[in-house]
Amino acid sequence: MNILITLDRNYLGPLRIMLASMFINNPNKTFDIYLIADGFLDADYQMLDKLTGRFDSRIKIVDFDKSIFGQAPSLRYYSRAMYYRLLAADLLPKNLDRILYLDPDILLINKIDRLYNIDFSDNLFAGASHTDSLGIIDTVNKIRLSNYNAESYFNSGVLMMNLKMMRKLVEKEDVFAYIKDKGKGLLLPDQDALNALYGHKILAVDDSIYNYDTRHFRKHLLNSKGVKNFDWISKNTVILHYCGKNKPWHEDYIGYFALIYKHYQKLVDLYLA
Amino acid sequence: MNILITLDRNYLGPLRIMLASMFINNPNKTFDIYLIADGFLDADYQMLDKLTGRFDSRIKIVDFDKSIFGQAPSLRYYSRAMYYRLLAADLLPKNLDRILYLDPDILLINKIDRLYNIDFSDNLFAGASHTDSLGIIDTVNKIRLSNYNAESYFNSGVLMMNLKMMRKLVEKEDVFAYIKDKGKGLLLPDQDALNALYGHKILAVDDSIYNYDTRHFRKHLLNSKGVKNFDWISKNTVILHYCGKNKPWHEDYIGYFALIYKHYQKLVDLYLA
Repeated sequence: MNILITLDRNYLGPLRIMLASMFINNPNKTFDIYLIADGFLDADYQMLDKLTGRFDSRIKIVDFDKSIFGQAPSLRYYSRAMYYRLLAADLLPKNLDRILYLDPDILLINKIDRLYNIDFSDNLFAGASHTDSLGIIDTVNKIRLSNYNAESYFNSGVLMMNLKMMRKLVEKEDVFAYIKDKGKGLLLPDQDALNALYGHKILAVDDSIYNYDTRHFRKHLLNSKGVKNFDWISKNTVILHYCGKNKPWHEDYIGYFALIYKHYQKLVDLYLA
Repeated sequence: MNILITLDRNYLGPLRIMLASMFINNPNKTFDIYLIADGFLDADYQMLDKLTGRFDSRIKIVDFDKSIFGQAPSLRYYSRAMYYRLLAADLLPKNLDRILYLDPDILLINKIDRLYNIDFSDNLFAGASHTDSLGIIDTVNKIRLSNYNAESYFNSGVLMMNLKMMRKLVEKEDVFAYIKDKGKGLLLPDQDALNALYGHKILAVDDSIYNYDTRHFRKHLLNSKGVKNFDWISKNTVILHYCGKNKPWHEDYIGYFALIYKHYQKLVDLYLA
């Protein structure tokens, strides 16, 4: 399976934990981890090679032609990394058909085969939206995306990418133009651009399975009339997404999903010892 | 290492989870699990053999002379199982020097060597007390044990037993007499008898490490000025004790320690598949 991760060195620790949880919960699978990393040292790659090698998987450093960003508009404090997801098909080897993009603030606690092998139909992506307690998309998100005509506002932290279709339909000029035009009004430029430009070509998957916002246990429990308890999560949820400011790798992080994160954190140390 | 467990068939499910967590977090160790079980079927023992066999460990059914309970007073709805812990030295093979008694509503998340190999000095047991938020023992417990002269009220759910010394000092007649005399006033007859008769011969160990009451996360965090957060627990706590009425194997159990329990529950299913 192909995995895409784009990050800077601050997320090296979480990346290790995410990878370990993925390997452990997907036994007998091997992974090619495509990394677009900023500021990584040789020792960092060696450590990641050691970890992935233990699970017969490989780190692949994505090497791309920097001129692709020649015409890219810049925006406030954002680096050009904000474009990596949307332009993934241009950056990755041309022989790849599909890849799973993952944010590094994630834990995988079950098998991802079903998401990975999803039938895209003619969609560009498969992803989940984080709805509010009534199951409705945040109106703020709807309003601030003017040319927005999709049903949901998708979270871009977990995205199955149909690279074949992206090579046909995603034009970097469109992305650059959107950011140039709306940039200053955007809260999350890459996620907003994804939704505004391609929201209608995203296949919706169940967020409580593939992009579970760990801040919203009570919401999921109530909306499901008690079905989505911890037993259900443990058996069904594939991807826990630690959204928000408080992150589980902080020593003092408190929450229902803290101890399971620390558990995998401890396992990483064992694997690398 | 020798482990003692006494239980009836209602606790077969939790027993499997406790054992799996112990095996997984104590790699390269083998265990002899001494079981005094009520109502177990042949199929239950076969299933436990399969699980323990995967970790090079063994189930040993404790076979004892029933006449030992000939003079034992009965008490309300309690079965004679209430005597098993205190009279363990009489029930177990005479060649055993030490054994770790464990309740089945427990999860082991780190290595137990240090507790197992503790220097008893001239004590009969090593155990932990569950203190209140000020670090003081519940006065109710102090008052109801009239001949009580120990420092703490010990929880009997995790007990390292000095069997050698117990054979010298623990007299079943004393235990029977105590239950006969005080029985009706006791809330937890076996735990009360342990404290009243032998509280002064129990070596105190840190409950936040060896008998962490999962209901008291906030208490431990506050008492330790924030040190005993989930990171600390994950690294230091050996035994999580799911005290109280709400049990983590119930489908709808909610709490900070729910998901880690469900995690091991899921692993058991994998090991037995």
